[in-house]
Amino acid sequence: MEILGERWTFLILHEAFHGVRRFSQIQRNLGIARNILSARLQLLVRTGILEKRRYQDEPERYEYRLSEMGRGLYPAVVAITRWGDEHLVDHDAARPVLRHSCGHAADPVLVCGHCGEPLDPRAVTPEPAAATV
Amino acid sequence: MEILGERWTFLILHEAFHGVRRFSQIQRNLGIARNILSARLQLLVRTGILEKRRYQDEPERYEYRLSEMGRGLYPAVVAITRWGDEHLVDHDAARPVLRHSCGHAADPVLVCGHCGEPLDPRAVTPEPAAATV
Repeated sequence: MEILGERWTFLILHEAFHGVRRFSQIQRNLGIARNILSARLQLLVRTGILEKRRYQDEPERYEYRLSEMGRGLYPAVVAITRWGDEHLVDHDAARPVLRHSCGHAADPVLVCGHCGEPLDPRAVTPEPAAATV
Repeated sequence: MEILGERWTFLILHEAFHGVRRFSQIQRNLGIARNILSARLQLLVRTGILEKRRYQDEPERYEYRLSEMGRGLYPAVVAITRWGDEHLVDHDAARPVLRHSCGHAADPVLVCGHCGEPLDPRAVTPEPAAATV
């Protein structure tokens, strides 16, 4: 939660989901100071969200890829981004579009994995963890 | 983003989506200090996520309901909660279940609003905001 809530880590994750993996490229895209980027990347590696890999020997260069755990954050990152686009940006401003491979704007919806209905909090009841799944 | 990232505000929102609206009830459920809860509720009201309504006159008592903007955070809150349940909790521990009105565990999935396919970052291309929508 605190990782998603910090502005820079959120934006670094956002870049990662768009295939931006290299220090210099992230730095350029976000206009972030090198020491801050370095600290945030270290935090994301330490928490297991990003994995650091060497891609060049001389000079040594590293890239940062999403781990499986990191990839699991995609729905959260999309949902937060969409909410921000809808509510925090000027209402008259055109919104960025997520183009899906089906050819249409993705317009992401959270649905029940069983019946496919969009999830409404009033149609959902939390149950404590059960011994049998 | 910073609102979702702060532990208490996230948990207060979580309560709100489960219909918990009253100061005393939130306080009891979360075991949060009164002054902290009061500050967090004020912040959520100020940002337009919660709405404060009087439900009793003597003594004056208020409840806190999600605004339309606040209700829009549901997918984000669900996605973050699920990610936490999957990755931050002991793997052998039983996970809480979200029971959907269809009778099954909701197992929320983020899908393309057009074709219904689960969204995969590799199948999505962000486009800058266009002049024509």
